Amino acid sequence: MSDTTQHARVEGENSSGEAMYQLACELFPFHRGITGPGVRASLKVLQQHVPLQVHEVPSGTSVYDWEVPKEWRVGSAYIADAEGNHVVDIADSNLHIIGYSDAIDATVAWSELRTHLVTLPKHRGWIPYRSSHFESGWGFCLTHRQFEELEARGEVDYRVVIDSELIDGALTYGEIYLPGASKDEVLISTHVCHPSLANDNLSGIVVATWIAKQFASTSNRYSYRFIFVPATIGAITWLALNAKGLPSIRHGLVLTGVGDSGSITYKRSRRDCAEIDRATAHVLAHSAYPYEIRKFEPFGYDERQYCSPGIDLQMGCLMRSPNGEYPEYHTSADNLDFLRPDALAGSLETAVEILSVLEANTSYVNQNPMCEPQLGRRGLYRSFGNLNDGGAAQRAVQWVLSYSDGHHSLLDIAERANLPFDQVRHATDVLIEQQLLLDVNVDVGATE
Amino acid sequence: MSDTTQHARVEGENSSGEAMYQLACELFPFHRGITGPGVRASLKVLQQHVPLQVHEVPSGTSVYDWEVPKEWRVGSAYIADAEGNHVVDIADSNLHIIGYSDAIDATVAWSELRTHLVTLPKHRGWIPYRSSHFESGWGFCLTHRQFEELEARGEVDYRVVIDSELIDGALTYGEIYLPGASKDEVLISTHVCHPSLANDNLSGIVVATWIAKQFASTSNRYSYRFIFVPATIGAITWLALNAKGLPSIRHGLVLTGVGDSGSITYKRSRRDCAEIDRATAHVLAHSAYPYEIRKFEPFGYDERQYCSPGIDLQMGCLMRSPNGEYPEYHTSADNLDFLRPDALAGSLETAVEILSVLEANTSYVNQNPMCEPQLGRRGLYRSFGNLNDGGAAQRAVQWVLSYSDGHHSLLDIAERANLPFDQVRHATDVLIEQQLLLDVNVDVGATE
Amino acid sequence: MSDTTQHARVEGENSSGEAMYQLACELFPFHRGITGPGVRASLKVLQQHVPLQVHEVPSGTSVYDWEVPKEWRVGSAYIADAEGNHVVDIADSNLHIIGYSDAIDATVAWSELRTHLVTLPKHRGWIPYRSSHFESGWGFCLTHRQFEELEARGEVDYRVVIDSELIDGALTYGEIYLPGASKDEVLISTHVCHPSLANDNLSGIVVATWIAKQFASTSNRYSYRFIFVPATIGAITWLALNAKGLPSIRHGLVLTGVGDSGSITYKRSRRDCAEIDRATAHVLAHSAYPYEIRKFEPFGYDERQYCSPGIDLQMGCLMRSPNGEYPEYHTSADNLDFLRPDALAGSLETAVEILSVLEANTSYVNQNPMCEPQLGRRGLYRSFGNLNDGGAAQRAVQWVLSYSDGHHSLLDIAERANLPFDQVRHATDVLIEQQLLLDVNVDVGATE
Repeated sequence: MSDTTQHARVEGENSSGEAMYQLACELFPFHRGITGPGVRASLKVLQQHVPLQVHEVPSGTSVYDWEVPKEWRVGSAYIADAEGNHVVDIADSNLHIIGYSDAIDATVAWSELRTHLVTLPKHRGWIPYRSSHFESGWGFCLTHRQFEELEARGEVDYRVVIDSELIDGALTYGEIYLPGASKDEVLISTHVCHPSLANDNLSGIVVATWIAKQFASTSNRYSYRFIFVPATIGAITWLALNAKGLPSIRHGLVLTGVGDSGSITYKRSRRDCAEIDRATAHVLAHSAYPYEIRKFEPFGYDERQYCSPGIDLQMGCLMRSPNGEYPEYHTSADNLDFLRPDALAGSLETAVEILSVLEANTSYVNQNPMCEPQLGRRGLYRSFGNLNDGGAAQRAVQWVLSYSDGHHSLLDIAERANLPFDQVRHATDVLIEQQLLLDVNVDVGATE
Repeated sequence: MSDTTQHARVEGENSSGEAMYQLACELFPFHRGITGPGVRASLKVLQQHVPLQVHEVPSGTSVYDWEVPKEWRVGSAYIADAEGNHVVDIADSNLHIIGYSDAIDATVAWSELRTHLVTLPKHRGWIPYRSSHFESGWGFCLTHRQFEELEARGEVDYRVVIDSELIDGALTYGEIYLPGASKDEVLISTHVCHPSLANDNLSGIVVATWIAKQFASTSNRYSYRFIFVPATIGAITWLALNAKGLPSIRHGLVLTGVGDSGSITYKRSRRDCAEIDRATAHVLAHSAYPYEIRKFEPFGYDERQYCSPGIDLQMGCLMRSPNGEYPEYHTSADNLDFLRPDALAGSLETAVEILSVLEANTSYVNQNPMCEPQLGRRGLYRSFGNLNDGGAAQRAVQWVLSYSDGHHSLLDIAERANLPFDQVRHATDVLIEQQLLLDVNVDVGATE
Repeated sequence: MSDTTQHARVEGENSSGEAMYQLACELFPFHRGITGPGVRASLKVLQQHVPLQVHEVPSGTSVYDWEVPKEWRVGSAYIADAEGNHVVDIADSNLHIIGYSDAIDATVAWSELRTHLVTLPKHRGWIPYRSSHFESGWGFCLTHRQFEELEARGEVDYRVVIDSELIDGALTYGEIYLPGASKDEVLISTHVCHPSLANDNLSGIVVATWIAKQFASTSNRYSYRFIFVPATIGAITWLALNAKGLPSIRHGLVLTGVGDSGSITYKRSRRDCAEIDRATAHVLAHSAYPYEIRKFEPFGYDERQYCSPGIDLQMGCLMRSPNGEYPEYHTSADNLDFLRPDALAGSLETAVEILSVLEANTSYVNQNPMCEPQLGRRGLYRSFGNLNDGGAAQRAVQWVLSYSDGHHSLLDIAERANLPFDQVRHATDVLIEQQLLLDVNVDVGATE
C-alpha cells in the first residue's frame, strides 16, 4: 500500500469513527434487555441508517433446548428512605435494577434489603451490571459508596418499589440481508441486550451497522446478513428459526467490544483454520497495529452458539479487550468516555479488510503455465534482462503466476509470498486483464 | 484435582512405596540370570502377591531368529590364592561371576587370570555386572581395588573354581492376565534376568506387580497382561509363542529402572504418536514433577522387540534415569540404597494415571449439539446470566460438550482445553448422567 | 566418516578446485551473450572435458510464449574523442557494451551520449554488466571514474562506433547425457550467457562440467543430463523442445554463483519438500560448514522456468552468495580474483553428495521383521549382552532394521536417526550382504 492510500484511509476512519460514536451516544440511554421496549427502540434508530427488518418471536416459542422467555418491562424502580428520598433510582442509571427483577412495593428493613444489593467493593464509584433472566427474585445494583452510606444509617426501613411486569410478549431482533452474486452468505452477529453499556455492546452494534452501510453500497460476491440479537437466547432463537439457511453461511464474525482503546483480539472459530481465521490472521499480520489471536474456547459471546458442534459455522469473534478481562466490563464505567471513535474506526477498517479478503479469495489458473509468460511485451516488465529489478508490484505478479495452478487461493499465495493481500489482488487484476489468469470457479457459490 | 485428593494420594504413595521396597529387598539376593533357578525363585515370591502363572520354555525352542539357550546353573565360584583364601567368591556377591561362565577347576597364573577379570577403574569400589550368554569362556567381575591388591602380589598362581553347568533346561517367565470388559489388551512388560541389581530391574518388577494388584481389584475396560521375562531373549520368546494374540494388544508399557531418584523419562513408541504416547505426554505435562520425553530409538530394553517393524506394538518405555546414563547402572552400586520407596511410589502413580487415561479415553456424542443445552435447569449453572463465572468444573463441562462430536476423544479434548484429564473425565460423567452425552463405542473392543 | 576419509577428500577437493579454476580462466575472456559466437566458443572448450553435444535453435523458433531472438554479433565497439582516442572500448572489457546494442557510427554530443552510459556511482572503479535483449537502442557501460573524467571535459562531441549486427542465426546450447540403470533422469542446468563474469556463471559451468566428469566414470542408478543454456530464453527453449521428456526428470539442480567465498545457499523447489530439497537439507545439516536454506520464490535464475506451474520439476538451486545480494554481482568485480578454487571444490563436493544421496535413497524391507535378528552370529555384534555398546556403525544397523518396513526410505531413516546418510547407506550395504534387507523397488524407474 502506498503512503497516499494509507493517508486517505485514515481520514475516512476518523469521519466514520465520529459518526459511529454519535450513533452510540444516541443509543446509550435506552434500557435494553434480552426482551422489551429498549431493544425495539434501539433497532428503530438503526433503521434510519440501514434497511433493517425487525422480527418478534413470541414468548414461549421452543428454540432447541430453550424457550423464548417472557418479556420484561420496567417502569419506575427505586429504594426510598423514610423521608421519601430515592436513595437508589433507575431514573439515575438503568444499571441500578437487576434485569428481570420481580415487581415489588414493600417496606423492607436494611438487614433484609442489603441481601438484595450488589456492589463492586474494588471500584467503589462504579455500578455493576447484573441480570437474572431465568430466576425469580429482585435486586438492585449500586456503587459501593452508596452502599456504605446506607450501611452507616443502621437498621432502618426502606420502601422498595419495582414497577415491573413479566408478560407474554416477544423476543425482538433485527436483521439486514444484502444479496450478492452468490447465495453463499457472510453472517455478522452482534448482541443488543445490554442497557447503558457502551463498549459492550453499542460498539458492536454501530460497527456492524457501518459494515452494512458499506457493503450495501457495493456489489459483492457474497450475500451479507447482519443480525442484531439478544446474547445467548437471541442467537439460539435465530439459529433455531433459520436452521434451513445455515448451510449457506460460509463465513461469519461475531462483533463484540470493538470500541475500547485495547488492541484487536481475534478468537478463532472452533475449526481453528477456517478461511475467516486465516483471512483475519493475514490481515492482522500485515496491519501496523499490535493484535492478539486466540484459539477457540467454548466461552465468551455468541460464538458459543454459532460454533456449537451441531452448528459449527466458520465464525470467529472480533474484539478489542476481551469480555471479562478489563475492569470496566459490565459496570457503569463502560460508558461513553470509555468508547473511542478512533477505535471504532479501526475495528470497522479491520472487519472490512477481512471481509474484502474473503470477497476476493478464489483460485485462478495461469493460462500460460509452461515457463514464464513474456511480461515485457505486455508492459509488465521494463526489460527482459532485469527480471530481478521489479518493484513489489512486479514481484506480486510473479508470485500469482507461479502459484495460480488452481490449487492455491489468493490467500494461499499472499501467505506464501508474505505480501499484503491487496498487492496480490492487484496483481491478479492486472493478470486477468492480460488474459493470463482464468477464474476456476465460474459459480462462486461452488467455491471450496 | 483438589488439595485433599492430592493429600490422600501422597499417603497412598508412601505406603505402597514402602511395600514395594520391602518386596525388592526380599528379591534382591537371588541369583537371577536369563535362565535358571534365580528367576524361578523370584517368580515364586511374586505369586504371593498376584495371580502369576509361571511358564517354562524348553532350551532349543526356536523363537523367530533365535533359539532358547541352555539353562545355566552355578553352585560355588571363587578364586583362591595359594593359602586357600577365597580372594573373589560369589558367596560375597553374585555379581562376581560373569553370567554363563563355563565350568572350570584349574590352577592359573596371574598373567593368565587377569585376562579373565573385569573391573571399573573409574569406580574402584564397585563390582561391574557382566553376562555373556551366547559365547563360551569364563570370567569374574571384581572391584578395581581387589584387582590392584592381586596385581600387587605379582605373578603367582591361583585356583579358579566355577561349579557351573549348561543343561537342556528351560527359559522361565511369569504372566498375569486380568480379563476386562474388552478382549483388547494392555501389555506391561518388565525384565527379570538381572542378579542383585536393584533399580535394574527389581524396581520394574515390583511396580508391575503393584499395578497388577491395583487393576485386579477394579473392573476395567481393557484386559491387562503383565509379563515378567528375561530381557531380549525372554521378550522374543514370549512374542514368538504368543504371536496369534498380538493383534489384541492395543497399548503397552515396558517398565525399567523406575526406582532411582531421577525424574521420569518416557520413551515414545516407534509410532511416535500412539495413544499411549499421547496419554503419557498429557499425564506428565499435568504432573507437578519434572520429566523428559524422548523419541523412539531402536536401543534400550525390550521395546526394541515390541516395536520391531513386524511387531510394531503401541508400547512405550517408562523409566526414571535411562539405562546406561547413570554411573551405578550395571554395577554393585545399583543396590538397595540406590532404590527409593518414594520413587517407586511415584512411578506406580504415574503408570496408573497413564493407564487410567487409556481406560477412560473414548469419544462421545453431544446429544444436544444444536447450540448449548440449558445447563441452568440441569443444575450445572448458577444462572443463565453468568456463563463466564463458572469454575473449572463448569468450564470442563463446556469443553466436553463443545468437542463431543464423535471425532474427538476425551484426550483430544483435554489436550485442546489444556485441562487435566481427570477434570474432563469428571465433566463427562456428569454429562452422561444428564443424558447429554452418548458413548459412540458400545463395543469398546471396536474403539479406534 | 572417519578422519582419514575426510582427509583424502580434502586433497581431492583441492586438485579439482584448481582444475575447475583453470578452466574458468580459459573461458573468462570470451564475449558470451544469449546468442552468438562467444557461447559457441565456450561450449567447444567444454567438449575437451566432457561428451557435450552442441545444439543450434534457429532464430524465430516459437518456444512457448517466447521466440528465439535474432543472433547478435559484435565486432569493434568504442567511443572516441575528437583526437581519436578510444575513451571506452570493448577491446579493454567486453562488459563495456550493453548486450544487443544496435549498430551505430555517429558523432554524438556529450549531453546526448551520457544518456547512453551506465555506471555504478557507489563502486567508482567497477564496470557494470548490462544487456537488453528485447529492446532496441544502444549503450555503453563504464566505470564511474571514466564517466566523471568525460563529464569534466564538458559539452564536446564523440564518435560512437558499434559494429554489431542482429541476424537470423541461432540460439546455442550444450547438452550432456549420461545413461544410467534407469531412464529416470537428474537434470543439472547452468547458464552460459554472461560475458566476462567469473562467479556468474563460469563457476556454475565448471562445477557442472566436473559433476559430469565424475558421474561419467561411475555406473549410476539415474541417468544424468547436463544442460548449458542461456539464462531464461535458453531454459525456456530447452523446455519447449524437450517437453516430451520432462516426465522422466525426477530431480534437478540449477547451479549458479557457486565459486565465491560465501557459504552455500540452497533455494528449495516450488514443491518445498521434494526429495532433492530433503536430500540437500540433510547433506548441509551434516556438513561442517555454515549454510542457508531458502524457500522457493519465483525470482532468481532458471528455477523460475523449471518450477513454473506447468513444468513444476523437482529442482532446487544451489548457490553460494545469492545473485543480486553481493556488490560484485553483475559488475567487472565479479572477476577471476573473486572466484576461489576451494569454493568451487566445496560446491562440487556438496553437489556430488546431494546426488549421491538421491542415488542411494530407496526403501528396503527388513527380511527378519519379527523382533531383532540375531546380529551376534552374523558378526554384527560383539556379544548378545552388549547391545548398547555398539559404536555408530552398529547403531546405524539397528536404525535401518527398525524402519526398513517398505515405507521409510534411507533418507527418512537418516533424518529420523540424525545420522549422516553415509552411515545409513553403509549399514544398508552390510545388511543387504547378510540378506537381512530386500530392495522393494526392483525397477528403480518405478520408485516413488
